[in-house]
Amino acid sequence: MAKNLELVFNKIDELANAVAPDFNIINDRLAPAIKITSISSDNTNEGRKHVYAMTDFLETQLKELNASVSRHKLGKQPDTDILLPDVIVANYPETYDKNKKTVLIYGHYDVQPPGDGWATDPWTLQEKDGKLYGRGATDDKGPVLAWLNALQAYQAAKVDVPVNLIFCFEGMEESGSIGFAAFVKDNQALFQHVDAACISDNYWLTTRKPCLTYGLRGINYFKLTIEHPGIQLHSGMFGGCIYEPMTDLVILLSKLVDSQGRILIPGINELVEDVSEAEIEEYATIEFTTQDFQNTIGSEANIYDDPKDTLMHRFRYPSLTIHGITGADPSPDQTTAIYPKVTAKFSIRTVPDMQGDAVTDLTIHYIEEEFRKLQSKNTCHVELFGESAPYWLGKKDDDNFTAGKAATQKVYNTEPDLTREGGSIGVTLDLQNALGDKSIMLLPVGMSDDGAHGPNEKINKENYVKGSKLLGAYWWYFANPEPKYGH
Amino acid sequence: MAKNLELVFNKIDELANAVAPDFNIINDRLAPAIKITSISSDNTNEGRKHVYAMTDFLETQLKELNASVSRHKLGKQPDTDILLPDVIVANYPETYDKNKKTVLIYGHYDVQPPGDGWATDPWTLQEKDGKLYGRGATDDKGPVLAWLNALQAYQAAKVDVPVNLIFCFEGMEESGSIGFAAFVKDNQALFQHVDAACISDNYWLTTRKPCLTYGLRGINYFKLTIEHPGIQLHSGMFGGCIYEPMTDLVILLSKLVDSQGRILIPGINELVEDVSEAEIEEYATIEFTTQDFQNTIGSEANIYDDPKDTLMHRFRYPSLTIHGITGADPSPDQTTAIYPKVTAKFSIRTVPDMQGDAVTDLTIHYIEEEFRKLQSKNTCHVELFGESAPYWLGKKDDDNFTAGKAATQKVYNTEPDLTREGGSIGVTLDLQNALGDKSIMLLPVGMSDDGAHGPNEKINKENYVKGSKLLGAYWWYFANPEPKYGH
Repeated sequence: MAKNLELVFNKIDELANAVAPDFNIINDRLAPAIKITSISSDNTNEGRKHVYAMTDFLETQLKELNASVSRHKLGKQPDTDILLPDVIVANYPETYDKNKKTVLIYGHYDVQPPGDGWATDPWTLQEKDGKLYGRGATDDKGPVLAWLNALQAYQAAKVDVPVNLIFCFEGMEESGSIGFAAFVKDNQALFQHVDAACISDNYWLTTRKPCLTYGLRGINYFKLTIEHPGIQLHSGMFGGCIYEPMTDLVILLSKLVDSQGRILIPGINELVEDVSEAEIEEYATIEFTTQDFQNTIGSEANIYDDPKDTLMHRFRYPSLTIHGITGADPSPDQTTAIYPKVTAKFSIRTVPDMQGDAVTDLTIHYIEEEFRKLQSKNTCHVELFGESAPYWLGKKDDDNFTAGKAATQKVYNTEPDLTREGGSIGVTLDLQNALGDKSIMLLPVGMSDDGAHGPNEKINKENYVKGSKLLGAYWWYFANPEPKYGH
Repeated sequence: MAKNLELVFNKIDELANAVAPDFNIINDRLAPAIKITSISSDNTNEGRKHVYAMTDFLETQLKELNASVSRHKLGKQPDTDILLPDVIVANYPETYDKNKKTVLIYGHYDVQPPGDGWATDPWTLQEKDGKLYGRGATDDKGPVLAWLNALQAYQAAKVDVPVNLIFCFEGMEESGSIGFAAFVKDNQALFQHVDAACISDNYWLTTRKPCLTYGLRGINYFKLTIEHPGIQLHSGMFGGCIYEPMTDLVILLSKLVDSQGRILIPGINELVEDVSEAEIEEYATIEFTTQDFQNTIGSEANIYDDPKDTLMHRFRYPSLTIHGITGADPSPDQTTAIYPKVTAKFSIRTVPDMQGDAVTDLTIHYIEEEFRKLQSKNTCHVELFGESAPYWLGKKDDDNFTAGKAATQKVYNTEPDLTREGGSIGVTLDLQNALGDKSIMLLPVGMSDDGAHGPNEKINKENYVKGSKLLGAYWWYFANPEPKYGH
């Protein structure tokens, strides 16, 4: 059986090195995809056309690989007259094979605006020093097309794809996946046979070692407003005589979190799942150094000297960040007003077992209590604001992850690190809601230095090629479980 | 002698009630001045022309009153190609009379932009219910023209003006009096004979009782920056792992002042001049209620229930206001960044005997000390920023103020309250620097509810007319001191 997988791998190498007129998965698949400026945040009819063009591109590619493609309309984007791009759902084989397990694959085909600072044209794939530069190279066109590369290789090698595949690609991920949650909820029939799902839309923790990702922190986002019902006043005439909202606001904010990042809201830390010695050991084995971290943040402002502690505070401890203040003067000018209504926004990143409601209740109660202690005549109002999301924790020891581990071992000859992400990835929760207790795994193709969202986004050629193998191998091992790796 | 003053007052009443074609000080002096849109913050050639037009208007009016007028060029406005409006200096009588004392009169002829919310056209003087509405009616065209009304009345009544007058009117006061300090410094010869100065550019403390103003708070303006040298980071990926500048900033800001307005910087309050029982008694006699104060601030967010305490905290105690934060997100959107460099601006209002340098040193030292306690790896920098100014304290018992008191008693039949302003008025200090130990008095014409800078600015017709008498009477009593009022 493993010999068949070798045939697939060989085909991927061939497809990566093919010379025209033969099909090459870089020149004939990734390069034309990069050319399409599918920026989902461009809310103009003209801009959105390029996202639709990318839908067409993927539909064509999938049909050439004999998948049955359906396009799902999401209607107009709220508050605009512009149509949302279709969600593409593609089944391979065309007819469901009840003797095979079924894998759902999620990806997105829209990209971020290019921004400034590019050394090359962001819309022309360019190879330099083994790196393939272009907007979307790693987020998420490269990984999406790697799935197609794998399928093509199976076919070229005449190896039967051992699972039913359902590809689900959306075009609004970089703009908050507008419409996607509702689509998933309304179309659960499409996913009825799914045994497991895989998302390739994140990155290795470093540039040195592959990983599988099994957890995400959640977020509770708050707005805290201090107000007196009066008008903007001159600090010369009124300073010292009235309760100033900004004074109360900074006092309350100072009681939320300390310089070392410890949340000061009573009861919050008690919600966090206890850590075991064994778990700490797991983090200690992950390939990650303080130097890696400092390179990423661009400074030496790390709180923890031990990289294991940094990982734990990203993966499995909560954090609280104050993002900004509205209503005071944000200009650099010398202004002298006392502002009557100031609002701070802050968020708490949540982890197991912090239930969102409990976090909200504790936070609001604490702030109101601290405000009462101030004995101010201003008013204080704190509430949840915008989108909040629960944490997500996958099943890192099930068949899905076992297949991911075996595939990594096969392609990279190393056991992947098991990581979590500190941020939330909305679609993971949308899919988990649709799939109930089915397993979801995040299986990244790119590296920590790929620069998604920034200038000079790239994917290493090696990651693109080996990533195509990795995804194909993942199907293989999900269908054909080996004795658990390492046992 | 006092009979002559009655003749002047009668003429002012006549001039206020005159019917065309006779000259009327409202229709023929205030109304055409209001028509001129002399907005000094309009930094365009076109906009500035209207300020120049107001210079011309005053020059013409002063010449018609037989004053000798000189116009002083201030050069180009820094960082622009636009000329600053001239300072007008007018002497009356044309030739210095060495047998008379000399009074310097300051005013400004530029205005604030109108802004929104006007019930009538801001550039057309309209009378309603005894109030004269229009931009500049009270700040400061009305008071400036009231000086001219007084001079005209003396002449019409054929009463000799008992002092030498030096009018000094500038056109950039609402934009920071650009160029004025340098002009005063470079032209001290113009002011060599001055015995006292009077500024009519502030307001009664209430709507019920006139006042003389003998003090101003100073201001030390600071910038506090917390920074790590890195980049903007995602709070999901990095929250809890790095020292967040915004966290450190709010902690430091919370240590500056408490909700009740008490400055927490050690040593600051010790600099403040001790208060005596007699001084407290003076504040207690001032016509001012908590209701007055609440009407002004538009809320019940007053710290002190006793109006005397409110006055003392406006007049003679320091205060600290946080004006805003730069570098974090001031938008109302749900954003999730950790910002690498955040700057707060705050100011301390200073009073006798707080020397600016001492305040600066104590503040910087304290913040640096508190930052060290945080043991953060961010950096902290605090410094003076923009314009700072010392407090000003006039000589409320000298001949200048005695004349102001006698004039008030004569016109309003009441002893004026002696007040200070909580803010700084830059030109007061500029003039004090030029005049050495000569007395300056602030003698307001308008009321607390005149709405300078806001929509529907007005001056009561009664204030405009009685104000003209008040200013004329001030000259009279400065030249002809009576036995001290109240003794």
